[in-house]
Amino acid sequence: MAVKSMNDLFLRTLKDIYYAEKQIYKNLPKMAKSAGSKDLKQAFEKHREETKQQIERLETIFEQCGAAARAIRCEAMDGILAEAKEVMEEIEDGQVHDAGILAAAQTVEHYEISRYGTLIAWADQLGMKDASKLLKETLDEEKKTDQLLSQLAVANINQQAG
Amino acid sequence: MAVKSMNDLFLRTLKDIYYAEKQIYKNLPKMAKSAGSKDLKQAFEKHREETKQQIERLETIFEQCGAAARAIRCEAMDGILAEAKEVMEEIEDGQVHDAGILAAAQTVEHYEISRYGTLIAWADQLGMKDASKLLKETLDEEKKTDQLLSQLAVANINQQAG
Repeated sequence: MAVKSMNDLFLRTLKDIYYAEKQIYKNLPKMAKSAGSKDLKQAFEKHREETKQQIERLETIFEQCGAAARAIRCEAMDGILAEAKEVMEEIEDGQVHDAGILAAAQTVEHYEISRYGTLIAWADQLGMKDASKLLKETLDEEKKTDQLLSQLAVANINQQAG
Repeated sequence: MAVKSMNDLFLRTLKDIYYAEKQIYKNLPKMAKSAGSKDLKQAFEKHREETKQQIERLETIFEQCGAAARAIRCEAMDGILAEAKEVMEEIEDGQVHDAGILAAAQTVEHYEISRYGTLIAWADQLGMKDASKLLKETLDEEKKTDQLLSQLAVANINQQAG
C-alpha cells in the first residue's frame, strides 16, 4: 500500500491499530488466566469486553472511509505481547508475576494511547468528525484502563510490603 | 535469568530499557536525516544528546545495584523501531512523511514513559532512592519530548492546512 496522502496515512495507521486490538483481544484471556490477583483477572476480563467494542468502532470507521476492514501486521504490538508472554511464562512467584504482567499491560495501553491520540489529530485534520468521536471514546477507555492498572500495581506493591 | 524477586524483576526491566535506549540512540540520526522539517530534525538531535545521558544514568543504576550493565533484547522496541523504519522508507511526500515519523517517535516515547513509570514505582518499593531520582530525571525528559513532538505534529498539520 503506497502512502501518498494524509488519508492514506490515516488508513494505514487504522489497519495497524486494528491488528493490534485483535491481537490484544486474543491475548487477554491468557493474561487473565495467568494473573494471581482476582482484581487483576477482573480488570483483564472487563478490558476484553471493551476491546471487542473498540474493534467494532474501528470497523465502523473503515466503513465511513469506504474501505474494507483489513489488518496489517503491527510489529510493535507483536513485540509488546511477546514480552508479556515471556513475563507470564518465566516468573513463578505470585506477586512478582503480577507486577510483571501489570507492567507489560501498561506498555500495551501506552502504545494504544499514543496511536489513538495521533489518529484523533489526523481525523480532526481530515474533517472526519464521526471517526474522531469514536476514536475519542476508545482513547478515554484506554486511559481509564491504564489508571486502573496503575492502582492495581500500587495495591500489589502495598500487599508485598504488608 | 530467573526472575524470582522484585529485585530480579527490576534488574530485568532495567536491562530491557537499557537495550531500548541504545537502539533509540542508534536510530535517532536516521530519523533526523529523514525528517523534512528543520524543527523536527533539531528535536531528534537534541533528544539524541538526552538519550546519551539517559544511557549513562542507567549505567549508574546498574552500578548501584552491583550488577554489570547488560542489555537484553527488547522485542517491543525492536517492533516499534521497525515500524518507524517502514514509515521512513515508504512515504515520500514531505509533510505526510513527517506526520508518520512524528507518530512513530511518539510511540517510542510512550513506551519509555510507561517503562520508567514502572521502574520508579519499583525503585521506591525497593528503597532505592538514588535510582528513583535518576529515573525520574529521565521520565521528565521523555514527557517533555513527547509534548514537543505533539506540538510539532500540530504545527505540521497547520502547515498542511495553510
